[in-house]
Amino acid sequence: MAKEITSRSENYSQWYLDIVRKAGLADNSAVRGCMVIKPTGFAIWENMKAQLDQMFKDTGHVNAYFPLFIPKSFLSKEADHVEGFAKECAVVTHHRLMNNPEGSGVVVDPSAKLEEELIVRPTSETIIWNTYKDWIQSYRDLPLLINQWANVVRWEMRTRPFLRTAEFLWQEGHTAHASKEEAIQEAELIHEVYARFAEDYMAMPVIKGRKTESERFAGADDTFTIEALMQDGRALQAGTSHFLGQNFAKAFDVKYMTPENKENYVWATSWGVSTRLVGGLIMTHSDDEGLVLPPKLAPIQVVIIPIPKPDEVLMQHAERIADNLKTRGIRVKIDRDDQKRPGFKFAQYEMEGVPIRVGIGKRDLEKNLIEVARRDTKEKQSISINGCESFLVDLLDEIQNNLLAKAKAFREEHTSSVDNFEDFKSVISGKGGFVKAHWDGTAETENKIKELTKATIRCIPIEDDEETGVCVYSGAPSKRRVIFAKAY
Amino acid sequence: MAKEITSRSENYSQWYLDIVRKAGLADNSAVRGCMVIKPTGFAIWENMKAQLDQMFKDTGHVNAYFPLFIPKSFLSKEADHVEGFAKECAVVTHHRLMNNPEGSGVVVDPSAKLEEELIVRPTSETIIWNTYKDWIQSYRDLPLLINQWANVVRWEMRTRPFLRTAEFLWQEGHTAHASKEEAIQEAELIHEVYARFAEDYMAMPVIKGRKTESERFAGADDTFTIEALMQDGRALQAGTSHFLGQNFAKAFDVKYMTPENKENYVWATSWGVSTRLVGGLIMTHSDDEGLVLPPKLAPIQVVIIPIPKPDEVLMQHAERIADNLKTRGIRVKIDRDDQKRPGFKFAQYEMEGVPIRVGIGKRDLEKNLIEVARRDTKEKQSISINGCESFLVDLLDEIQNNLLAKAKAFREEHTSSVDNFEDFKSVISGKGGFVKAHWDGTAETENKIKELTKATIRCIPIEDDEETGVCVYSGAPSKRRVIFAKAY
Repeated sequence: MAKEITSRSENYSQWYLDIVRKAGLADNSAVRGCMVIKPTGFAIWENMKAQLDQMFKDTGHVNAYFPLFIPKSFLSKEADHVEGFAKECAVVTHHRLMNNPEGSGVVVDPSAKLEEELIVRPTSETIIWNTYKDWIQSYRDLPLLINQWANVVRWEMRTRPFLRTAEFLWQEGHTAHASKEEAIQEAELIHEVYARFAEDYMAMPVIKGRKTESERFAGADDTFTIEALMQDGRALQAGTSHFLGQNFAKAFDVKYMTPENKENYVWATSWGVSTRLVGGLIMTHSDDEGLVLPPKLAPIQVVIIPIPKPDEVLMQHAERIADNLKTRGIRVKIDRDDQKRPGFKFAQYEMEGVPIRVGIGKRDLEKNLIEVARRDTKEKQSISINGCESFLVDLLDEIQNNLLAKAKAFREEHTSSVDNFEDFKSVISGKGGFVKAHWDGTAETENKIKELTKATIRCIPIEDDEETGVCVYSGAPSKRRVIFAKAY
Repeated sequence: MAKEITSRSENYSQWYLDIVRKAGLADNSAVRGCMVIKPTGFAIWENMKAQLDQMFKDTGHVNAYFPLFIPKSFLSKEADHVEGFAKECAVVTHHRLMNNPEGSGVVVDPSAKLEEELIVRPTSETIIWNTYKDWIQSYRDLPLLINQWANVVRWEMRTRPFLRTAEFLWQEGHTAHASKEEAIQEAELIHEVYARFAEDYMAMPVIKGRKTESERFAGADDTFTIEALMQDGRALQAGTSHFLGQNFAKAFDVKYMTPENKENYVWATSWGVSTRLVGGLIMTHSDDEGLVLPPKLAPIQVVIIPIPKPDEVLMQHAERIADNLKTRGIRVKIDRDDQKRPGFKFAQYEMEGVPIRVGIGKRDLEKNLIEVARRDTKEKQSISINGCESFLVDLLDEIQNNLLAKAKAFREEHTSSVDNFEDFKSVISGKGGFVKAHWDGTAETENKIKELTKATIRCIPIEDDEETGVCVYSGAPSKRRVIFAKAY
C-alpha cells in the first residue's frame, strides 16, 4: 500500500493528492473543479460540523437556510463585494431544456430565458441582508445570530481537492447588531471559537490575527483570520470572521429604531469555515505512510483486528472490547474480513489514519495480551486485555495531545524573525514557514513584497507584543511585526 | 395573535400560509419559488434530519457528497429520466459576470460561456451513477449504501412553502447491489424506515404502497411510497423509495464481475424525503390557534413562564425545573422577557406549537403548585411542583401518542370504500380523503379518472388483503382495491 504514496520530500503536492485518493477521502467528478466527497472524507467533515455546530449553538446562534440563488442585481449593490465575486460565479440563465430539434439529446429551451439571471451563491451576504430588511425594524429584533450550513460555488480556475474547489461545503454566519461594539465583539468571539476548534479538535495550532486591508473579505471593514502552517511551509487560511460595518445594511437599506426612536443602520458580521479544513487536517498531521487523524475527528478511532483472521474466540474478545469502548463513546470498528492478510489490513488502516489499531492474536491471548499500535508514532506495545479499554481511552487523549504538540513544534521550527530583505527572501524561498517581519503598513510595500517573493501578509497577529522597528522592505518605521508566508 | 390566523374552515390554504408565517417557519425570498427557512422551521428540519440520519446509519448506510451540477448530456442518458426532469431545471450557461459596458451594474460575460451547460441537480442519479462506474468493478465492491443530504432544484411554476418549492432540502440515498432481490429488499427496507419515522416521530400515520406505472419515479421499475392524509382531505406523498432495476447501470455502463467471473450490470435503488415533510407535519396536527408539534420533533418541548414576570424566586424555581428537564434530555426554554404580558406569551407559544407550557405563579407557588397546559388538547391542570419533572416527561409521551391517535382517527373517518363511480365522484368532491376502490389496472382508466375527478391513485397498498371486484370506472375485473385521493 504505502509504496503507492509519493513521499513528501519527493513531491509534496502529489503526496497530498495520493493521500486524498488512497485514503478514500475524495474523487474528481465529471464537473470541472467539483469533487465528490467520499464516505470517509465526508465522515471527517460530519465530525467537524457536529462540533462546530455545538459551539455555535452554545454561543447563542441558530441555524436557518437561505436560497441557493442570488439575483444578479443584488451582487452589484455593495461595490467591493461585486468586485470580489463577479469574476468567478456560475450564472443560471434558463429554466428549461427541450428535445434537440436538430438531433438527439436535449438543448436549452431559448424561450425559457430568465428575466434576470441568477447567480449560484458564492457567499450569501446579499440575499441574507435583503431578507434581514424584512426581519429588522426595532432594536428589539436585534441581535440576529444566524448561521447556515450550505454549499457555495466560486468558479476557480486552479482547483485542489478540499483546498480549493469550484463547489464547496461550508457554514456562513451572518449576524446583525444594534451597535458597532457588539458587532466587533461578535466577530472576535467567533474568531476565538474557530481558534479553539482548530487547536482542541483538529490539533492544528493557529495564529490569530487581522487581515491587512488588501487581504480583507470583499465588503468587510475588518477581517479576523486563523492561519495554520502546513508541512511544506505554506500557510493555510483556515477560518475568517468579518466585521462588515454598516456596508450591507446601507446597500440593502436595513435600519432599526433605537429605544430613543432614532433610525440607525444595522451593524453586521459574517464568518465561515469550509471543507477546506479537511485539507488542512490532512496536511497538518499526515506522513509518508498515509493519513494521520486526530482522534477527536477520526471517523474510526479504534480498529480491532482478529489475527490471523476472525474465529469464534477472537471475535468474542473483539466484540466485548468494542462494546465496552462504544459505551464510553468511542467510535470502534471490528475488521470482520476473513480474506485479506493481517499485514495488508495494517497497511490499509495506517493509510486511512485510524489512530489506534488493536491486534487480537491467538498466541498473545494465551498470555492475556493484545497488541496496541498507535498511528501517530507507529509505536507498538503489548498490554493486558483486562481493563484494556481504559488504556485505549487514555491513549486516544495522548495521541490527540501529541499531534498538537508535534504540530506546534513544527510551527516553531518554521517560524523565523527576520530584519532585512535578503534574509526575508532567503527564508521564504528556502525553509519557508511563517516569517515575522516589520512592515511599513502600506499596500504598496505589501504588493511589492508579494510580487518579488510570492509571500503575502497572512495576518497582523493579535497576541504578539508591539515592538517598534523598520520595514523589512522600505526601511520606513513600523510599530509591530506582521506574519508573512507563501499561502494556499 | 390567534385572530390573525385564517380558520381552516374559512380558507384552508390561507390557514396553512398563515401558520407558516406567524409561527416563524419560513418566508418568501427574492428568488421566485425559493423560500427562506427561518430558525424555527429549520430547527424542525434539523430534528427530522438527525433522527433519519441515525436510522440510515443504523441500517448500514454512510453519507457522502456529490456535485451540485450535472453535465447536460448526463440527463439524456436515461430516456425516462430526462423526460421527467428536463422541463423544470435551472441551467448554468456562463461562469463569469463583467461590468456592464453600457451602464451600471454587471452583466453576463459572453466570453465566459460554458462548452457544455450544467444543470443544477433536480436529483442525482446520473452524476452518482457516472461516479459509481469508477467505484464498482467486482462483487466485492457491493453493496454500496450511500446517502447524501443536499439541496436540489426543480423549476416548479406553482409553489407553496415546504410543500413545493423550486429549491428544497432533502436526502437522497443511492445504493448499488449485486442482485435484483437485494436491491428490492433495500427499497423495501427504506420504505419501512420512512413509515416508521412518519408514525413514530412525526405522529403522522401513513399508508404504505406501490405507485402505479404512470406515477413512478422517472427511471424506476418500481416505486414504494408512504402516503399521508392532510386535514383538508388531500393526500401528501411523504417519501418514496425506488427500485431502479439496471436502468442507470445500463445508461452509465456500470458492470461488476461476479464470483464466477461473469460480467453483470449492477442493480440500483434510490430514495428520498425532503423539507416537504415539514409541510406535512404542519398540516397533520395544527389547528386554528396555530402550529401543533409532536414533542419528538418540537424545537422547544417545554416552555416555562414566570407569572406575571420573572423575579428572583420564580426564576430559581424555573431554573431548577429546566435543569432537571435538560438532564433528562428535554429541550426546554425559560421565557425571561419582562415586558410582555403572560396572556400575550401564552398565545405566542400556542402559535408556535410548543407542546407543554408551564406557568410558575406567585400564588400557586404558595400552595406548591405550578400550572401545566398542553398544546394538543389545550387542557390545563395544576400539579405539585415537587417531582413535576417526571410528570412533564410522561406528559410529552402522552402528547406524542395522542397526536398519532388523533391523526389516525381522522384518517379512518376520511377513508371510504366505494363501489361505483357516482359514489366515487361524490366522495372525492365532497368529504375528500382516501378512497378505496377497484381499478382495472390500465393507465387509460387511471388517466380518465384523474381527468374527471382530479383524483390520482396514491398507491396500491401493501398491507390490505386482496379482494376481487370490478373497476369503479370501467367495470372490468380487478384483484384488489387501490387508494385514490386528490393530492398535494
